[in-house]
Amino acid sequence: MWAEVPDPVPGEGEVLVEVTASAVNRADILQRQGHYNPPPGASPYPGLECAGRIAALGPGVTGWAVGDEVCALLAGGGYAEKVAVPHGQLLPVPEGADLVRAAALPEVTCTVWSNVFMVAHLRPGETVLVHGGSSGVGTMAIQLAKAVGAKVVVTAGSKEKLDRCAELGADVLVNYRDQDFVAEVRDATDGAGADVILDIMGAKYLERNVKALAVNGRLAIIGLQGGVKGELNLGALLNKRAAVTATSLRGRPVDEKAAIVAAVREHVWPLIGGGQVRPVVDRTMPMSEAAAAHRVVEESGHIGKVVLVR
Amino acid sequence: MWAEVPDPVPGEGEVLVEVTASAVNRADILQRQGHYNPPPGASPYPGLECAGRIAALGPGVTGWAVGDEVCALLAGGGYAEKVAVPHGQLLPVPEGADLVRAAALPEVTCTVWSNVFMVAHLRPGETVLVHGGSSGVGTMAIQLAKAVGAKVVVTAGSKEKLDRCAELGADVLVNYRDQDFVAEVRDATDGAGADVILDIMGAKYLERNVKALAVNGRLAIIGLQGGVKGELNLGALLNKRAAVTATSLRGRPVDEKAAIVAAVREHVWPLIGGGQVRPVVDRTMPMSEAAAAHRVVEESGHIGKVVLVR
Repeated sequence: MWAEVPDPVPGEGEVLVEVTASAVNRADILQRQGHYNPPPGASPYPGLECAGRIAALGPGVTGWAVGDEVCALLAGGGYAEKVAVPHGQLLPVPEGADLVRAAALPEVTCTVWSNVFMVAHLRPGETVLVHGGSSGVGTMAIQLAKAVGAKVVVTAGSKEKLDRCAELGADVLVNYRDQDFVAEVRDATDGAGADVILDIMGAKYLERNVKALAVNGRLAIIGLQGGVKGELNLGALLNKRAAVTATSLRGRPVDEKAAIVAAVREHVWPLIGGGQVRPVVDRTMPMSEAAAAHRVVEESGHIGKVVLVR
Repeated sequence: MWAEVPDPVPGEGEVLVEVTASAVNRADILQRQGHYNPPPGASPYPGLECAGRIAALGPGVTGWAVGDEVCALLAGGGYAEKVAVPHGQLLPVPEGADLVRAAALPEVTCTVWSNVFMVAHLRPGETVLVHGGSSGVGTMAIQLAKAVGAKVVVTAGSKEKLDRCAELGADVLVNYRDQDFVAEVRDATDGAGADVILDIMGAKYLERNVKALAVNGRLAIIGLQGGVKGELNLGALLNKRAAVTATSLRGRPVDEKAAIVAAVREHVWPLIGGGQVRPVVDRTMPMSEAAAAHRVVEESGHIGKVVLVR
C-alpha cells in the first residue's frame, strides 16, 4: 500500500531528506509481520536506510546544505517520499556511487563495521567466518575483511552464491547444505579456528559457532534466523577465552548510531571511494512494489541488496 | 605430602624465586581432584602465585636482581621452596605490604584487572555485580571497582560475609540464599541493570545474569562452580547489545600473562601502595598443611585469601 501522508518536519538536529531510493532489510519484513516494532519515536513506516537529497535543515544542523546528495541510516520511514533523520546518521554519497547504489550502503556498512570491527576488533591476518556470505551484510563483510587483510571463510546455500562470494574476495567457500563449517574452518586455519564469526542464525548455530572459534575468538551475532534460545558451552568458551556478543543497530540511541556512522565515514567511505569496496545491488525495484521485493528477500533469491526506487 | 624434589633451573627469561608464601586457589583444589591439569610445560606442583626473594636470574633477564622481594603469577609450582617464573609475571612487593600479604595479590589482582577492566571495561559511574563478593577475587573486585568510581552490588551467602563486603566498600548487599539478585540489581539501578557482572557460577546463573545485565552490559565469567552448559537467551542478549565472555588466567600464553601483569603494576599497584586497596587475608597456614587449607576454601569458611607460609 502506498498512501498519502503529511511530510515529516525535521526537529532539532535533524534534516529532511527527499528520498530517491531505499533498500530492503529483513527487519522490514519482520516489522510487516508484526515481529519487530519500530523503537519509540521512530517513523511507523518501514525502511531503515535511504539515499536522496536534503530538502530542509532543522534547527542546529551544521555541515550539511539543502540539495546535498546523501545516504542515511534510519530508525524507519525510508519507504517514503521524505524522511526526517538526525544529522549524525547522514553520509555523503561516496565518490563513484550514485543515489541508487548509495541506498544499498548505510545498513550493511554500519552493521559490519560496528560488529566486525568496533565490537569484535578483526585484525589483519586473522580469520573471519561470515555466515550468509551472499547477503547484503555478507557481501560487505567479505569486502571489508579482505580490505583490512583478514582471511575470509563464508557459508552460503548454493554454488552460484558462493561463486559471487569468491569474486568479492572470499578465500574459503562452504556450502552449508552439504559441508560442515566447523570442519572447513578447522581445515582452513591449521586447526586454530576462526578469530571472528559474524552470525545471522543465532541458536541453531550457537554450539557449532563456539566449536569453530579460535582461542580469543569473538562470536558476533546480528540475526536470529535459527532461533532465540540455545545451549552455550561455557567450559568451551572459557577454555578459548572467547566472547559471544549480540547486537542490533536499530534500537541504538542516536548518539551511538552517530558514533558508528562517523567511524564508517572515516574507515569505510575511503575504501568505497577508492573502488576497493563496492555496494552489491542484486536488483532495483519500484518502491510501490515493496511487497514483491520483500518476497525476493524472504525467498533468499538475491545476492547483495534489493534496492527500492521511487 | 611434602617431598624433596630437585630445585627448578631458571630458563631463558626466567628467574628463580625462593618462596616465602603462596596462597590457595580453587584451581589447586580442582587440580588435586584431577579436574584441572597443569598446562603443558608448567610445574606439576600446585600453587598459582607466590611471594619471596629472587634466588637466581636466568639468561636474558633485566630489571630484576638477586635478593629482590617479589610476588609472582605462576602456571603452577608455588607450593614449593623454589619456583622458576617468566620475568614478565613478576611484581615487586607493593609499598606497605610484606611477603605474606603480597602472596595474596597476584591471582586476584590479575583476574580482576584482566576481566573487569581489560575485557569488560568497567567505567566510572557504572554498576558492577560481583558474585561471591567475600572470595579472594570478590574482595579485590569490590575495592578496585570502588577505586575507579563504580557502584558495586555483591552477592554472598551470610550476613558476616556481606558485612565484610560492606567494609570494603560494596554499596548493595545481596544474600543469595534468600534474595533474588536480578530484582536487587534492578532496584539498585532504577531498573537499568548491571553494566558489568563478574561471575563464578557459570551455567546456574547464566539466565539470571543475562536478565540482570543493562543495555551494553558485559557478563565476564571466570568460574563454573554452577555448571558448564546453560541456556542462553540470544534474543535478550541482542536486545541489550550485550556480551558474554569467559576466561581463565592459567591457560594464557606467557606474553598475555606479561601484558596483564604489566597493566596490574601500572594501574593496581599504586592503589595498593596508596592504601586505597588492600590484600584481604583470611588466615595464614603452614604450607605443610595445604590439605587443611584446601578444606577451608572448599567449605567456603573464609573471607579473602588463605595464605600458605613456608
